[in-house]
Amino acid sequence: MEKLRLVPLKQTILQDSFLAKYASLVSKVIIPYQWAILNDQVAGAEESHSIANFEIAAGRKEGEFHGAVFQDTDVAKWLEAVACSLATTPDKQLESLADDVIALLEEAQGEDGYLDTYFLIKEPDSRWTNLMEGHELYTAGHLIEAGVAYFKATGKDKLLHIVCRFADLICNVFSEKEKSKGYPGHQEIELALVRLYEVTEKRKYLDLAKQFIDQRGYEPNYFLEEEKKPEFKRIFPEFAKYQPIYSQSHLPVRQQKTAEGHAVRATYMYAAMADLAYEFNDKELLTTCETIWNNITTRRMYLTGSIGSSGILERFTTDYDLPNDRNYSETCASIGLMLFARRMAQITRDAKYVEVIEKVVYNTLLSSIAKDGKSFFYVNPLEVWPDNCIDRTSMEHVKPARQKWFGVACCPPNIARTLASLGEYIYFSDKKTIYINLFIASETTVECEGGKVQIKQETNYPFDGAVKLTVTKEKQQDVQVAIRIPRYITSYKQKQNGEYFENTKRERGYEILQITEEQTVIELDFDLMPRFIYANSEVRADNGKVALQLGPVVYCLEEVDNGKNLSAIYLDTSKPVSAYHDESLGEDVKAIKMMGKRRKKTEWMTKELYEEEKPIFEDIEITAVPYGIWGNRTPGEMLVWVNHTIV
Amino acid sequence: MEKLRLVPLKQTILQDSFLAKYASLVSKVIIPYQWAILNDQVAGAEESHSIANFEIAAGRKEGEFHGAVFQDTDVAKWLEAVACSLATTPDKQLESLADDVIALLEEAQGEDGYLDTYFLIKEPDSRWTNLMEGHELYTAGHLIEAGVAYFKATGKDKLLHIVCRFADLICNVFSEKEKSKGYPGHQEIELALVRLYEVTEKRKYLDLAKQFIDQRGYEPNYFLEEEKKPEFKRIFPEFAKYQPIYSQSHLPVRQQKTAEGHAVRATYMYAAMADLAYEFNDKELLTTCETIWNNITTRRMYLTGSIGSSGILERFTTDYDLPNDRNYSETCASIGLMLFARRMAQITRDAKYVEVIEKVVYNTLLSSIAKDGKSFFYVNPLEVWPDNCIDRTSMEHVKPARQKWFGVACCPPNIARTLASLGEYIYFSDKKTIYINLFIASETTVECEGGKVQIKQETNYPFDGAVKLTVTKEKQQDVQVAIRIPRYITSYKQKQNGEYFENTKRERGYEILQITEEQTVIELDFDLMPRFIYANSEVRADNGKVALQLGPVVYCLEEVDNGKNLSAIYLDTSKPVSAYHDESLGEDVKAIKMMGKRRKKTEWMTKELYEEEKPIFEDIEITAVPYGIWGNRTPGEMLVWVNHTIV
Repeated sequence: MEKLRLVPLKQTILQDSFLAKYASLVSKVIIPYQWAILNDQVAGAEESHSIANFEIAAGRKEGEFHGAVFQDTDVAKWLEAVACSLATTPDKQLESLADDVIALLEEAQGEDGYLDTYFLIKEPDSRWTNLMEGHELYTAGHLIEAGVAYFKATGKDKLLHIVCRFADLICNVFSEKEKSKGYPGHQEIELALVRLYEVTEKRKYLDLAKQFIDQRGYEPNYFLEEEKKPEFKRIFPEFAKYQPIYSQSHLPVRQQKTAEGHAVRATYMYAAMADLAYEFNDKELLTTCETIWNNITTRRMYLTGSIGSSGILERFTTDYDLPNDRNYSETCASIGLMLFARRMAQITRDAKYVEVIEKVVYNTLLSSIAKDGKSFFYVNPLEVWPDNCIDRTSMEHVKPARQKWFGVACCPPNIARTLASLGEYIYFSDKKTIYINLFIASETTVECEGGKVQIKQETNYPFDGAVKLTVTKEKQQDVQVAIRIPRYITSYKQKQNGEYFENTKRERGYEILQITEEQTVIELDFDLMPRFIYANSEVRADNGKVALQLGPVVYCLEEVDNGKNLSAIYLDTSKPVSAYHDESLGEDVKAIKMMGKRRKKTEWMTKELYEEEKPIFEDIEITAVPYGIWGNRTPGEMLVWVNHTIV
Repeated sequence: MEKLRLVPLKQTILQDSFLAKYASLVSKVIIPYQWAILNDQVAGAEESHSIANFEIAAGRKEGEFHGAVFQDTDVAKWLEAVACSLATTPDKQLESLADDVIALLEEAQGEDGYLDTYFLIKEPDSRWTNLMEGHELYTAGHLIEAGVAYFKATGKDKLLHIVCRFADLICNVFSEKEKSKGYPGHQEIELALVRLYEVTEKRKYLDLAKQFIDQRGYEPNYFLEEEKKPEFKRIFPEFAKYQPIYSQSHLPVRQQKTAEGHAVRATYMYAAMADLAYEFNDKELLTTCETIWNNITTRRMYLTGSIGSSGILERFTTDYDLPNDRNYSETCASIGLMLFARRMAQITRDAKYVEVIEKVVYNTLLSSIAKDGKSFFYVNPLEVWPDNCIDRTSMEHVKPARQKWFGVACCPPNIARTLASLGEYIYFSDKKTIYINLFIASETTVECEGGKVQIKQETNYPFDGAVKLTVTKEKQQDVQVAIRIPRYITSYKQKQNGEYFENTKRERGYEILQITEEQTVIELDFDLMPRFIYANSEVRADNGKVALQLGPVVYCLEEVDNGKNLSAIYLDTSKPVSAYHDESLGEDVKAIKMMGKRRKKTEWMTKELYEEEKPIFEDIEITAVPYGIWGNRTPGEMLVWVNHTIV
């Protein structure tokens, strides 16, 4: 079966009052700010030197390389974010700025096509000798993604040519016998090469992606052999006792059954595996993807769609190990999960993958960025007690407030490109079917067999369950829509052109509707009630606790609403719960009120740690707000999994 | 006021069936095993080389230094454990072996008195240039403690002379202008020098201890200055960005209000501060000790008497930060807390300090050693889920089972010397009063004004509340006993020579009884009921949870009694609780049965992580066993703080 197609980004216009505001931050706030960062024009920010590195490599100025070995990716991701932004929000000035940067990249590129300023400036003799740590292929991957995105958004192919020249060089290098067993220490280029193949139709890019995936993890381990060679120069001293599982190279990928190691590396690789499974009709690889997907989503994923439970090495840990306070749950890992999920959804047409995308978007992705677009979370815990997020508690990776920018700035530009490309997730299509994945107010135009189909989606989802779809097509055109019915929806009503109807045709979580009229109005009314959610009892951290969701939106308690010490609050799940608009949270956003108890701080607690006195409780009203927007008011404690009363 | 005196170790004979068995492991199991380790005679154990280092330094053989910079302390602690053991359990063969080792030390000692094989063999030109990391003063401290203990136990003074020569050298070195601002990177020698002063009455040892304490923490920080000097050689790369708070050198000690940094360094220092506060009648220093004591015991101590919440750097963290699963809670830190508590109790005559000693002994100290004396815990969490105590969860410091031995073997010999010296904690005395601190079956003879007083204590405490004390004195002698009435005892009855009586004379937790007859029998009957304990609501980790104690003994659930997944169990505190003898636990030990609920694992949990289905509970009987003996049967999960039902 053909995989579902993405609708080109420029075809979809976001109109949603909630998400569109976030998406608009990309062009208004993040891109200009990041540009200033790349040029070291932000007072007090850590030195980036990213543009300067390219200028030095291009011979435009003298100087030394500065920054991480993957510093170039900041420029690549900026360019990709600009491309995604230009696709929906044309901006001549920004485009001209990006063209200048692309010209700089062209000047910096070596005659043989090589383009990585760390190795061009600092280690010219060490190319491809340290795949474990050197990030050359990772950096190349991000450049390739930028080139593809910029071409798709603007039609301009200069950057595409640059990255093709670099990709051609990489194809040559990795066809040499010695290097042909190699693969990236940080996966990324695999999915980028597939994207490059999709645009250029050059088969060798796809083949190289497959080679990287196929070689990975065979004994003797490439990285462990590599580091024994005389030309190997250690970059990260902490990698001295390298464990291949960290980069998913502990086993050939087809033998991997569980999600292991660094979560960003992992998800980028899984996304590429899904791509290759489809392109090569590789059933075994697809089964591996499904097995790993199930391991992630039924054993190793937080309710908020975040992954990677360990603060050290940002990695997956073990089944059901989901601590809420010390986890890493990196933003980029959830973005990687979206990339993996989207590909699996396109291939399998199963809505369960989209459900995880929706979970990530409304929870971890939104949480990772402030409402003003000026600060970010790398780490997305489900429980924050600011007093203990300090160095000497070994919890310094958890920040109680979003940070301005980071030395290793992978998350902010990744958030930017993801927000700017949200439109690509809302609709998929095949020749005659439009898949409605996400309920986000928007308009789109989809190329189908027999002509263009227009969809207008009007809704205030997820804070209101009413969704109105207006589908316009050519008169004789054979068109269907496949509407995702979220698994969390237990009842809904629907009208077609004003008439209630029932439809029993369901395929893998999508309701299939034949569109007969030139213009058809479908109105859905999802019963969106706040729901109490319980974790699998195997999750040690969550027994005795309950969480709250409205649609896909996970709620949390914040100190600003509920006072200090959220751990002393017990939710009474037998009492009524009500959602209401709270203006302090912004238009359309609903807060939830419910009843519960709070443990009283009694007199002995000023003097003692432990006592026999039974806890004393007082009845209280509890306020919960969407997790995705926590930390946008007065800073303080936050809690997703709340104690509940158990009779 | 004069401080209370310890009763010399050899005067007290342990007869308690529970603790004496542990104490007897020292001579029977630990000392011989450790001797084999020190000589590298245990197959499969990490190389110790400790005796070999001394042999090389002594010129008895050729070779290189091997081991940690503080490797000599393994020999010193072994000698101290031997001394404590010989004090109560004479053993000619062992004594002769120890004498041989002492002769070896004498041979290894430099002409100037220097004795540290790392620096003698490996870095002869670097003495005293790296106080931050070199552990010279720490190692010297343990040697001094061994010398004092061996002299007290055997009356032999060869080792005492050796350590005096070394201490004299240290006095000279640290009287030089350049070094006079220096102090140890790992505190230990301060309390050792006080002990040396007590035995030798040489004032300069006491003065040097005071100098080290007084100099500590002034700006500019000694260690940060030291590491800038050309002769400084880094030993531990991870100390590169040294934070003075790690070694309590962030502030002059009298300005410290909270327990910070590495918990073993901290408590050893606090013990010395208490000593010096007494010796110099230094009220300010005593107030500092009390302030820090209160901070530890009312903000930073586990119910089991363990301290140091952070797995990284084995350190104190912040108030109320007491996670139960990832904490370090090092055995040696609790031993240090005992040393600090004992001194504070001697100085202030306040039973609250003894209560913490009792807590440590019955919980963390016992937990740290297997019932057969052959394996040990460094790390003493209050919750263990073996599945996640693995490297990739960043929980590798938590071991689900006791370990045979360790590369850095500080805890096992420290446990040995502490168990062997338990006798010193049971009784204190002044001229006419005998303090009964701990209820441990034993006999002792105490020198008082007017003659010797004998005490025979018969009891099966803490598993039975009956305590019988037989006090024998000279006819005309003016003698009192001060019996500690534990704060957790809410009611008790007592008889004197068979007659019930009431006594209202209480002083700081001790009941004071005048002894009039030559032989007086005092029978106490403490009402020892299992008690539910709750944590201060500020302890985020313990809200919604309850613990169980019988007397000083903290209980825990084990998988072997209660099945897998202890987090799914909810204790019903409104239901009756019963303690009973359980033969599988060993004589006299009581288990506790109580009622509760267990969350059922329902069908969806095989497929999903999160669901709306309300938890389903089944009624169950729960078995709890003393925390101190957990992990002595089938390995598995363990849990101290159990969820409880809340109506």
